[in-house]
Order: sequence, then C-alpha cells, then structure tokens
Amino acid sequence: MPRSWPEKRRSMTRKSAINIIAAIASSALASGSWAQDRKSTIGRKSTRMQARNDSRAVAPALDKYAQGPIAELWKRPGLTPRDRSIVTVSALIARNLAGEMAHEMNLALDHGVKPRELSEIITHLAFYSGWANGMSAVDVARNVFATRKIGTDQLPQVSPSLLPLNKEAEETRATSVEKQFGSVSPGLVQYTTDVLFRDLWLRPDLAPRDRSLATVAVLIAAGQSAQIPYHLNRAMDNGLTQTEAGEVITHLAFYAGWPNAFSAVAVAKEVFERRPR
Amino acid sequence: MPRSWPEKRRSMTRKSAINIIAAIASSALASGSWAQDRKSTIGRKSTRMQARNDSRAVAPALDKYAQGPIAELWKRPGLTPRDRSIVTVSALIARNLAGEMAHEMNLALDHGVKPRELSEIITHLAFYSGWANGMSAVDVARNVFATRKIGTDQLPQVSPSLLPLNKEAEETRATSVEKQFGSVSPGLVQYTTDVLFRDLWLRPDLAPRDRSLATVAVLIAAGQSAQIPYHLNRAMDNGLTQTEAGEVITHLAFYAGWPNAFSAVAVAKEVFERRPR
Amino acid sequence: MPRSWPEKRRSMTRKSAINIIAAIASSALASGSWAQDRKSTIGRKSTRMQARNDSRAVAPALDKYAQGPIAELWKRPGLTPRDRSIVTVSALIARNLAGEMAHEMNLALDHGVKPRELSEIITHLAFYSGWANGMSAVDVARNVFATRKIGTDQLPQVSPSLLPLNKEAEETRATSVEKQFGSVSPGLVQYTTDVLFRDLWLRPDLAPRDRSLATVAVLIAAGQSAQIPYHLNRAMDNGLTQTEAGEVITHLAFYAGWPNAFSAVAVAKEVFERRPR
Repeated sequence: MPRSWPEKRRSMTRKSAINIIAAIASSALASGSWAQDRKSTIGRKSTRMQARNDSRAVAPALDKYAQGPIAELWKRPGLTPRDRSIVTVSALIARNLAGEMAHEMNLALDHGVKPRELSEIITHLAFYSGWANGMSAVDVARNVFATRKIGTDQLPQVSPSLLPLNKEAEETRATSVEKQFGSVSPGLVQYTTDVLFRDLWLRPDLAPRDRSLATVAVLIAAGQSAQIPYHLNRAMDNGLTQTEAGEVITHLAFYAGWPNAFSAVAVAKEVFERRPR
Repeated sequence: MPRSWPEKRRSMTRKSAINIIAAIASSALASGSWAQDRKSTIGRKSTRMQARNDSRAVAPALDKYAQGPIAELWKRPGLTPRDRSIVTVSALIARNLAGEMAHEMNLALDHGVKPRELSEIITHLAFYSGWANGMSAVDVARNVFATRKIGTDQLPQVSPSLLPLNKEAEETRATSVEKQFGSVSPGLVQYTTDVLFRDLWLRPDLAPRDRSLATVAVLIAAGQSAQIPYHLNRAMDNGLTQTEAGEVITHLAFYAGWPNAFSAVAVAKEVFERRPR
Repeated sequence: MPRSWPEKRRSMTRKSAINIIAAIASSALASGSWAQDRKSTIGRKSTRMQARNDSRAVAPALDKYAQGPIAELWKRPGLTPRDRSIVTVSALIARNLAGEMAHEMNLALDHGVKPRELSEIITHLAFYSGWANGMSAVDVARNVFATRKIGTDQLPQVSPSLLPLNKEAEETRATSVEKQFGSVSPGLVQYTTDVLFRDLWLRPDLAPRDRSLATVAVLIAAGQSAQIPYHLNRAMDNGLTQTEAGEVITHLAFYAGWPNAFSAVAVAKEVFERRPR
C-alpha cells in the first residue's frame, strides 16, 4: 500500500540490524563464545529447541508437517537420501534461497555427497541457473567448507582430464541445435557446444547421472517446463530411472512448491510415454 | 563482467556491514534508543520522510507513482483492502521478497487479516510456494508478531478439528489425478490427497475462499500459468467472483510485474469463457 | 530434511552476524578505515585477490570460466558493453539478485550508462519486474550513487515533458488489448494504457530502444516466454537489430542460466521468421 511504502525499507534495515545484534547476544549467552557457536553448526543440536520455538511462534502446524510427511519423505525408498540432498540443494540454488542453503549443504555432505561433488554441482548450476545464483552458492559453501575444515585438496582441479566424449551423440546434438538456432543466436549455439557439452559436462568429479539429476531438479524448481523433455531424456540416458524421476518430482513438491511439481509431472508423463521402458 | 567479477562479492558484504552500522547509528540518532525504534515499527511514521528521500535519491518518479496509481489501486472497489493485502503478502512469499514483507504483513493485520489467518497463509504457502519460502516468511512474521505482542493464544492449533470434506468432489479430483499421474509420480499423487486436500485445505482458521485467493495470487506472481485454470476454477467454486479475480490480476500487475499479469489475464479469459457466469 | 529443519535458521542468522563482524574487521584491517573502503568500491582493486581466493575455496573452475568465456563474451562484437550492462542489470533486478547488483550497476556506469538512464531502468523495471524488485534495486543504487557522488541534479525529473506519442500505433495497441481483456481485467487494461504506454514509456531520459532492451532482458531472465513476442517485436520497431537480439540471448545464457536462454531462442526464432528482415 502506497501511503507508507517507503517506510518499510528503512525499518527493515534497522530491524535486520537489531536482529543481528540480538542474534550475537543470544549466541554469546547460549554458547559462551562465537568460536563454540561456529563449531555447533556441525552438530546443530544446541539451537534446535530455540528454532522450533520460532516456527511455533508463527505457524505451529509447520513443525507437525516437518516431523510427519517431510520426515517420511526423506525415508521413501524411491530415491536415496544422497540423491534427495542433491535435488534439494539444486532447487535452493536455482531459486536463490540462501536462508536454507547452508543447512542443506551440510546435510548433503552428511548424506555422502563428496565436497568435490558439491563443488561441481555449484559450478554446473552457475551455468544452469545463472552466474549470480552460482556466486550466492559459493558464498554459502565457503562458510560450510571452512566450518568443516574442507581444504582445497578436497576440491576438483581447475582443468582436470575430461571424461571421454560420446562423439556420435554429441555431434547429433550439436548439428540439431545449430540447424534450429544457429542463425538466431550463433553465440548461444557455440558456447553450448564448447563450454557446456564438450567441457562442463565432461568434468570428472561429478558423474553424468548426478549432473543430470541436478539439472532436472533446477528445471523443475525454476518452473522451466519447456526445457524438461531434453534433460529428462538425457538424465535417463545417463542412468536415472523413471521411478527415481517420479520421486524427484514428489520431493520437489515440498521443496519447490506443489505448482512446480504438477507442471513437471505433466511433462514427465509425456516424456515417459514417448520413451520405451 | 569477468575481469572483476569476484570483487563485488566482498565489497557487498562490507557495504552491508556499513549500511547496518549506519542504520543503527541513524536509528539511535532519530529515536534515542533501539527500544523506541522497535516500537516505531507499528506506527511507521518517524522514518517515512527519510525513506522517501532514499527513493528520491535514485528514482524520483517512483514516489509519484506510489502516491498516484498505486494509492488509487488500493481504493478500487473491485477488491477489499483486506483481500489486496492477502494477495500482496502471498505474492511476496511466492517470490521470496523479504525486504517488503514485514511492511506488507503489518499492513495486512491493519487491514483486518487476523493473526491466525496470516499464520495459515504462511502454512499454506509453505506447500504452494515451497518449504524454504515458507520458512523465510516465518522469520519475517516472527518479528512482526513479537512487535505487535501477538502471542500463541492468537495462533491456530497444531491439529484442529477440520472443516467437513466435500467427499464427492474430492473423490472426483483424487480419481482424476491418480488416473493421470499415479504411475508417473505415485508419491506426489498420494501426498496431494493426504497432506493437501484432506488436511491442509480443511484447516479451519483460513476460509477456503481466502486459501484459494492466496493460492491464485502465488500462481500468478510466480508465473505458473499452467496451474492457474484448476485453482482459478476452484477459487470461484469457493466464492471468489470473476470481478474479484480480474482485480487480483490488476493488483498483481503492480506487485508481481506487468508480464505476469498479462500471462495470467490470457489464462483467466479462457477459464471465464468455459465457465457459466 | 526435517529432523533438524528449524535449526539451520538460527545458525544462519548467527553466521550472518559473524560474517558481518568478520567483514567489518577485515575491512578495517585491510583499508584502515571504512571511509577508505567505501572509496575502494569505485576502484574495486584492493579486494579482488581476496574474493578470487573465496571462489577458489569452493569451486576453482568458476574463476577459469570467468577469465575465459565470460571475459570473451563481453568483448563480442554483436552487442556493445553498454548494452550488455543494461541487459545484465535488468536480469539481476528481474531475479532480485542483490548480491551482484552493486557491482553490475557500477560497471554499467563505467560502460557509459548515464545515471539518469540507470534511474529510468529501475523505474521501468518496478513495473516490468514488480514493485518490490524495483525497491530492492533502489536500495542498491542509493549506495552506488552515494559512493560515486551522483546527486539529484543528475537524475530525471519527476514529471518531465514526455516524448511524442505515436498515436496511431498506440490506439491500435490499446484497442486490441481492450477487445481481448477489457471484460476480464478492466483495471489492468486501463493502467496499461494510462500508466505504462502513455506515461512510463514516453519518459525522455531512457531511449525507447533501451527501454525495450531492458524489458526484453527481464522477460528472458524471468522465463516469461509468453510475453516475449510482443516485446521483441516492439524492441525491433524501436531499433534493436536481430543480431543484437540474438546476442542478448547469448549474454543471458550466462547471466540468467542456459534454460532461460534456450526457451527464449525458440520464441525468438518464431518472431524472426514472421517478421521481414
């Protein structure tokens, strides 16, 4: 409402400042020192009770849903917790939801995603969700890695030996895209070949199947239905099963919202029907 | 531009710190103490002049549009200020625009949205815009509720008696969705029935018509056109008029951008044409 | 994952506080005073090494891509650096990616975008990407302008003399939109005419061609494919060439993600085919 639209801006800034000071104060009270508190981001036990109180102070049912259907979701057999973590982190990066990102990155590492794999997911999604989204993810991951004492020795090389290229399939792809769009956006076509399919996708520290999983998660989470058919087919070529794909959609209903899941399931249905099982 | 892409990141962090300190300082100057300043987030008068100066320092015409067409928008007869607030808050949650959220939540409460209704809107949108969006909204609302001394006695119960289910309509829906998507994503189909339509939608502290209003606002604001027909029809079944629906689109032109409004109006036209008035 | 979902929220707040304090401390150490540090946001040299170290601590290949293909991108002949900056800033505003925004606004000014033009881009995008996105951009630009000592004398007037209206074309547009959507959302139709096409688009401090460039960038960056045909045609009527449009898509592959670029190139192809060169 306009009568007061500009006021909120300053009051938010001020409130943020107050919150931050309050958080510093409560952190100091709770854990005695910041150093200790930093450590507790791995254990993540000491602050749990307080945070659940927070959500109870606003929307008490959310905790019930978290303890019920969402807890159950992560245990469903159709997709491993590791895969669910790749999907969840990818969705948060695609939607630039930094608030939940540190927690989910920590959880991904707990679920067996290797630091070098998380590093490659971020690199991959700098291209598939936009450079600035990748940079935000770098900011969050930097703290996660520092807290867990993950050094550069656990990260991918800048220019490693690439996985072998499936020349025939790639030439078919490149020719088709060149024919369709070469005269509309020659730069796009060229970079897609040179930077993405003959470089990024061949980097060895993230399996093509997992790269596809992250890509499909981004497309569903960002509502980019038009790009799902190509990448869902590619994901299945790379080893993702139809059961797993269906479960990715179920998972993202919770983490990217029901509407994105329903738009995706309609596209997936068509993709599955046109593809021999 | 790449020559310096990484620099901005650190300078932003530092600039944020400077802004926060500046905000603390100016707050202390303006209101004498943080305690007083906290109080002023209800009145929202003391900082208005300063904030209008801020926008005038960048884009002077924005204040003119705020005082002109946007002020007029909120007074248009097609939708009550209360409904406009539900639409605005829902759009901000869907787009995770935390900067404006506290102000609009305060305004919603001023416009007669009950705390228990705002609580249910957040719970509802944790499912319709994604869990992390819901959590961001919890963070903002926690401060709004604390400032207004809204206690848990004004919030919905965790597990209240649910509204009666329209069994026939719900079975038609469930059967249709199962038939369409049961083999593609069985988990999605199951959770949609169990968690959404036989639980969330029946929670009594937000009227089904208002739940629909929030849902439709999210779909328009997030550009999820493919999901609008089902939910716009459901909203009208729940009592939203075509005039109100048209005015929701007008309102969201300002709050979610013209392109989303134009994509929505084309879908709404088709929905209206297929539906007897 | 739900077992601990609420914990992360508090730990993030605390971690943000720690980061901010750390940034203040490191800033003080590095540059001796905040005043000096503020100045360095123009030069942007002193912190570059540190920031590159940050990305190397997470995703070492990103720096390689920044120094390679992205550096090359900005030098491609199809679009001037000034136009690329308009496209980049518009994409960040559309996606509310505040983290990169200050840097890209500074770069835009370095590339010859006038302060009054940047001001008008923000005003324009408050309507084309939503009011709250515009307000976020105001917040960032306020600091950029203050740091560069850009005063209100360099900003557009609130109500300047408008550019002449092409009455015939505008009446054709208005009549067509009224006929299509006048009974669905009369308010949308009215505001589109009064506020957008007979006011905002005629403001003289941003050329119609540049206004179109920003609008098309927003549509591509936000994945609003359905609105691309009208505005891409309008952009070409306003002087954008097909080569430039194709290069906008190439540019946005990096800055808004590959999927948005591929959705856009398919639409652009159709638009180009229906339009005589």
